[in-house]
Amino acid sequence: MTKFYHHDKPFCLELGGILPELTIAYHTYGTPDADAGNVIWVCHALTANSDVADWWPHTVEKGAFLDPERFFVVCANILGSHYGTTGPLTPDPVTGRPLYNDFPALTIADMARAHSLLADALGIKHINTLVGSSVGGFQALEWAVQEPGRFSRLILIATDAKASPWTIAIDETQRMAIKADATYGEPRDDAAMNGLAAARAIGMLTYRGPDGYNRTQQDDDSAPLSAPRRGCTYQQHQGMKLCRRYNAYSYVRILDAFDTHDIGRGRGGVEAAIKTLTMPTTVIGISSDIIFTPAEMRRLASWFPDSTYHEINSDLGHDGFLVEHRQLNKILLNNEQQD
Amino acid sequence: MTKFYHHDKPFCLELGGILPELTIAYHTYGTPDADAGNVIWVCHALTANSDVADWWPHTVEKGAFLDPERFFVVCANILGSHYGTTGPLTPDPVTGRPLYNDFPALTIADMARAHSLLADALGIKHINTLVGSSVGGFQALEWAVQEPGRFSRLILIATDAKASPWTIAIDETQRMAIKADATYGEPRDDAAMNGLAAARAIGMLTYRGPDGYNRTQQDDDSAPLSAPRRGCTYQQHQGMKLCRRYNAYSYVRILDAFDTHDIGRGRGGVEAAIKTLTMPTTVIGISSDIIFTPAEMRRLASWFPDSTYHEINSDLGHDGFLVEHRQLNKILLNNEQQD
Repeated sequence: MTKFYHHDKPFCLELGGILPELTIAYHTYGTPDADAGNVIWVCHALTANSDVADWWPHTVEKGAFLDPERFFVVCANILGSHYGTTGPLTPDPVTGRPLYNDFPALTIADMARAHSLLADALGIKHINTLVGSSVGGFQALEWAVQEPGRFSRLILIATDAKASPWTIAIDETQRMAIKADATYGEPRDDAAMNGLAAARAIGMLTYRGPDGYNRTQQDDDSAPLSAPRRGCTYQQHQGMKLCRRYNAYSYVRILDAFDTHDIGRGRGGVEAAIKTLTMPTTVIGISSDIIFTPAEMRRLASWFPDSTYHEINSDLGHDGFLVEHRQLNKILLNNEQQD
Repeated sequence: MTKFYHHDKPFCLELGGILPELTIAYHTYGTPDADAGNVIWVCHALTANSDVADWWPHTVEKGAFLDPERFFVVCANILGSHYGTTGPLTPDPVTGRPLYNDFPALTIADMARAHSLLADALGIKHINTLVGSSVGGFQALEWAVQEPGRFSRLILIATDAKASPWTIAIDETQRMAIKADATYGEPRDDAAMNGLAAARAIGMLTYRGPDGYNRTQQDDDSAPLSAPRRGCTYQQHQGMKLCRRYNAYSYVRILDAFDTHDIGRGRGGVEAAIKTLTMPTTVIGISSDIIFTPAEMRRLASWFPDSTYHEINSDLGHDGFLVEHRQLNKILLNNEQQD
């Protein structure tokens, strides 16, 4: 069940915008220990929500690494998102109308500060384990650098310490597709749906990669030339599926925030910032990930004072972190025992 | 200098359309030998033209593998393209108006038959070497299977025998971006330019890949957050650059044709079709190509009765075939000497 925290004061954003008030949607699973030493905080990716059990199959269950019988698991919907936290479709408290494309620009650091605000409001001073995958990993790393004393352990999956030129180019291409739809900018919840569908299809290409498509979307050799190709219908389907559950303004704001990610900004660079993170850190890459490549993940791991690197072996690209729950649980449960 | 061949009879297309007449734009370099044994025919990729010396740097020059002092090099602009061969912007002979989005659907086999028509018209019965890279390789393979006796040698670079689900999904995503621009369908040369720019940006992602962008588009660490990112400006620039020189209708028709590529169609499958190609064949992959991956290129080579496989070592992805001319010339000149 989604819970909401209302922060009735202004929330100032890194790039100069101000949210006059802030609502944060979140989920919790399990119960805090007497000493609240069993808190695991999960940071979610691009278009996900705070319901980890919904979007991350077989992780929030008995025997898994987010076992709610053992842990108190918290996940907050990110700033600017579509799922309950203040975003472009939230009615402005003054005018009563959503800001849509006038919603202020966000950064990953803003998202991390919103998580911190919620943790304080929930009385969670100390977090045993902070977990983030993909853009969730951006938030986790940024939050860890903002408040290193708050966390005993860090788990970073298919992510990076700074948006790379490649990932920024992917984001820009998605924005180009959205803005090629001339309804982008119109003050309505369903503006630029054709553009959003194309953007999502671009995202899917990068989430799955060559092996992912060639493994799962082969056409029947006997199909006539006029028959729809699975590579086409899959892209259309994925595009429309996102349009039914999301909005173009949140999508663009979060892509923009993605591009600002750099935990080294104002801190002497990425490596200097990571050197301050002395807690045990688990870094997990995916063998076929073309967004955060295994080589980049190994490099990320190498920068931490105390890290172990693991690789999920998968054909499914970046989406491997969502799909390969057996390998993921195995890595994280083994790792926990070794500490 | 672009030359033109006018075919005044109807040209029937594989998917049922009919072109009432056909113009083929082409270039030649060098001079035929007395026995015309020195013909090299080049098939070009997606948005290129017949001027190989223009789009393939350092190949049509002294000492290179298309040395015009030694070879008679021919390249024809493909059916449906923007550069002189009959396409969506060509005035219809009956109405005098371009067909735009009503231009009939094409296949790679149609393109190969147009090449054959031009070769016959030029009196070129035998072609020493047929070269194709990317979608040019699609045409080369298809043409070789249509008329195996015409060619003594085949060079296939960063290409495939059949469009894969991954490449079809990339094409569909580009079509989604173009059609998200509601001006697609309007009867004008510059329809859907914003969509075309986004489509080209998608293409660029796949042509360059992670290493290509991370190597060439790094931002200056000292740049303020408000400064434009190189990953963004590069995508915008590449999108606009194509819009200045191409049209959305040709682009979509050629993507559609790409998806139909399957040299095994009606021939008992890809491997059976390739087994008929007994001429010496050189297959070249690129180490960082995410469109036609090295693993797929090695598999392609393995299907030929008489092939050698080489790999260009490059960070620049699929575009490596355009950029790594030193390695390419070295492979092809060595290979020639070994025959």
